[in-house]
Amino acid sequence: MLTLHHLEYSQSFRILWLLEELGAEYELKSYNRDPETNLAPDDYKALSPLGTAPVITDGELVLAESNAIIDYILDSYPDSTLDPAAGHPDRARHLFWYHASPGSLMNLQGIAMILNVLEMRSPWPISKLLGAVFGQARKLFLNPRTAALLDLMEQDLGKQPFFGGDNLTGADITLVYPMYAARDRGQFEGRPNILAWFDRIEAIPSFKAAVAKDDRPHIAFRFSE
Amino acid sequence: MLTLHHLEYSQSFRILWLLEELGAEYELKSYNRDPETNLAPDDYKALSPLGTAPVITDGELVLAESNAIIDYILDSYPDSTLDPAAGHPDRARHLFWYHASPGSLMNLQGIAMILNVLEMRSPWPISKLLGAVFGQARKLFLNPRTAALLDLMEQDLGKQPFFGGDNLTGADITLVYPMYAARDRGQFEGRPNILAWFDRIEAIPSFKAAVAKDDRPHIAFRFSE
Repeated sequence: MLTLHHLEYSQSFRILWLLEELGAEYELKSYNRDPETNLAPDDYKALSPLGTAPVITDGELVLAESNAIIDYILDSYPDSTLDPAAGHPDRARHLFWYHASPGSLMNLQGIAMILNVLEMRSPWPISKLLGAVFGQARKLFLNPRTAALLDLMEQDLGKQPFFGGDNLTGADITLVYPMYAARDRGQFEGRPNILAWFDRIEAIPSFKAAVAKDDRPHIAFRFSE
Repeated sequence: MLTLHHLEYSQSFRILWLLEELGAEYELKSYNRDPETNLAPDDYKALSPLGTAPVITDGELVLAESNAIIDYILDSYPDSTLDPAAGHPDRARHLFWYHASPGSLMNLQGIAMILNVLEMRSPWPISKLLGAVFGQARKLFLNPRTAALLDLMEQDLGKQPFFGGDNLTGADITLVYPMYAARDRGQFEGRPNILAWFDRIEAIPSFKAAVAKDDRPHIAFRFSE
């Protein structure tokens, strides 16, 4: 039987939701972050060579990387609408958003995160100087790229209810983590179609079941805590 | 007919190699970077909402995001060994490296790139101060994570010849861009299995054909130029 190693406030929430949506049989092992460092505990880091969440184990197999895990699990559900088949009218849209999650959104969030952390953790007046340097990077590179991506989200979610098209797909499931992280930072103000997507997924029974099993007051990790 | 919009020294080299490996019929439209800014020209940026490379067009469809394009193209080749089927012994290994390319390697390279560019482009003594601050981020976060990933590559390529396992797969093809970018920066010194992978792919006829069509002295963009 497959085991999901779930680290609180991490990208492994995606896999919890996926397994609930599929009605899969699985074992859930939950891990808390270190209360001092906010990092994964040592027994979590020891699970996989990269030390990152999520991780699943299935017999001898240890697998990391969210979308690899989603594809691997969906292999056992070849007729699932979570992965629209080749030729399906929503196929290209699904593929784009499924891969844009790590390839564009998480990538831009990773850069934003490191700049924010460096600025926040430096003492004055270094923080002030970093703010000026990073302000240029944000203005010239990070903000325009992020805005283009969010504008495309807003436009696409105005045409069809889910990132994957007419149905919930793996695209919506893999995007759930960076979308909550972005909403927590107020990035979707003035983008009603995106905000309506949150209402839509929060009404899905499998999402509610995942939230109940996660048993935390919010989904994404918050750096401000 | 499918058209590949190929920007020189960019991630679209992957799709050029893929199409050559598949023996696909396609139209190649090549674009040069702006010689002043090194950015994609305006007609390239206008192709897709994100303005990033690669982009393909196929009738009415405009598709961006490397792995989405690879999956979309492979839909027309359901028996291709480039995507090992569910249950194949190399399936999980292929999936891991296919998704670790954007999810881990490109992500870490994106952060490294932005720190390097900010440091390089700032005047002394700001560059000096940034170097000290970024040195801590590199030491505590970026370098250990990158080393863990490269160690895993070195280990896996010691067991089987390709990232995808016994055969070349989409994992090798999508990794080609960040791998050349990393090799250009000397990141694989002392990792002979990784260096042997480059020799192996450079001997493949479709790789040679892609290099010939690309017609550039090297593959990845070099910030030092």
